[in-house]
Amino acid sequence: MISREEHERAQRYAADQLAAAGIVLTGDELERIEVADFGLGRLAEIGLQLFVYVNTDRYCAKELVLQPGQTCPEHRHPPFEGTPGKEETFRCRSGLVYLYVEGDPTSQPACTPPPGAYTVGHEIELRPGMQYTIPPGMRHWFQAGPAGAVVSEFSTTSRDELDEFTDENVARATVVS
Amino acid sequence: MISREEHERAQRYAADQLAAAGIVLTGDELERIEVADFGLGRLAEIGLQLFVYVNTDRYCAKELVLQPGQTCPEHRHPPFEGTPGKEETFRCRSGLVYLYVEGDPTSQPACTPPPGAYTVGHEIELRPGMQYTIPPGMRHWFQAGPAGAVVSEFSTTSRDELDEFTDENVARATVVS
Repeated sequence: MISREEHERAQRYAADQLAAAGIVLTGDELERIEVADFGLGRLAEIGLQLFVYVNTDRYCAKELVLQPGQTCPEHRHPPFEGTPGKEETFRCRSGLVYLYVEGDPTSQPACTPPPGAYTVGHEIELRPGMQYTIPPGMRHWFQAGPAGAVVSEFSTTSRDELDEFTDENVARATVVS
Repeated sequence: MISREEHERAQRYAADQLAAAGIVLTGDELERIEVADFGLGRLAEIGLQLFVYVNTDRYCAKELVLQPGQTCPEHRHPPFEGTPGKEETFRCRSGLVYLYVEGDPTSQPACTPPPGAYTVGHEIELRPGMQYTIPPGMRHWFQAGPAGAVVSEFSTTSRDELDEFTDENVARATVVS
């Protein structure tokens, strides 16, 4: 659970970061910026701000905004309704993000995961102009560098409520009190 | 057919417009900017510059760049391989673009189409922060305003070679001499 004040502060932070990256949102859209604390109430450490442009039954596009050092916890996108599950491409727009996926663990990773369950450690560094595509079902997590990050996500349909988190204490829903 | 010089000039124009919109491409990517003259050899009037971020067998994301007043000619995306055909969302990033789709024709449209076959005239004005989703199979064309435009396209898989142009003289391929 996070306070209304923290929720608004995170929305404003995301709005500012998007504007600084040259990404224009309308007034209505700014109010639709989502803040996810993954049910942990430690938003600055584990969380994500996001804006969904479009999510049809065939494709989806979003902007993800991360606070400095903020982590999106490890999860995978399972198959659903006869599809292989969500396939997604992350493209860094500003700042720096470290993405961790399945594969040979990087020997001296740039990031330390926060407390919780993290099992994959193959590091991919994404700076502006760099992108990476995550196949369906692959576990992944990511953490922003010291100045935060803006990341465009292009993908198949998003069904966030189906995401499978490695840590059973993590949930996609956020409660604002 | 367009000259190598015109092709390079159009690539440079697109690179500059993307940079001005805050969109970072790597050096390799800048060389992969496509220039389409639709086989007509009148690029400044009828054409498109584009960069494809990703085009998997499930989704696609591109940036489209238009020169001032440049028109992408009327076409539709037909069904293929058991799918309904390409569904696409245009989101304006900078400049101004007028999109024309099926539906009640707008009585005093902002644009005049160039010579060729144009049959749809329902106008949608897209300024930065505005977007529109075109269903599969719907005929559409678009023209930039006087300062050109940068438009993000989020969609299902792109199969440009399948596009059906209303004008039979139009082709997707571009020959550079």
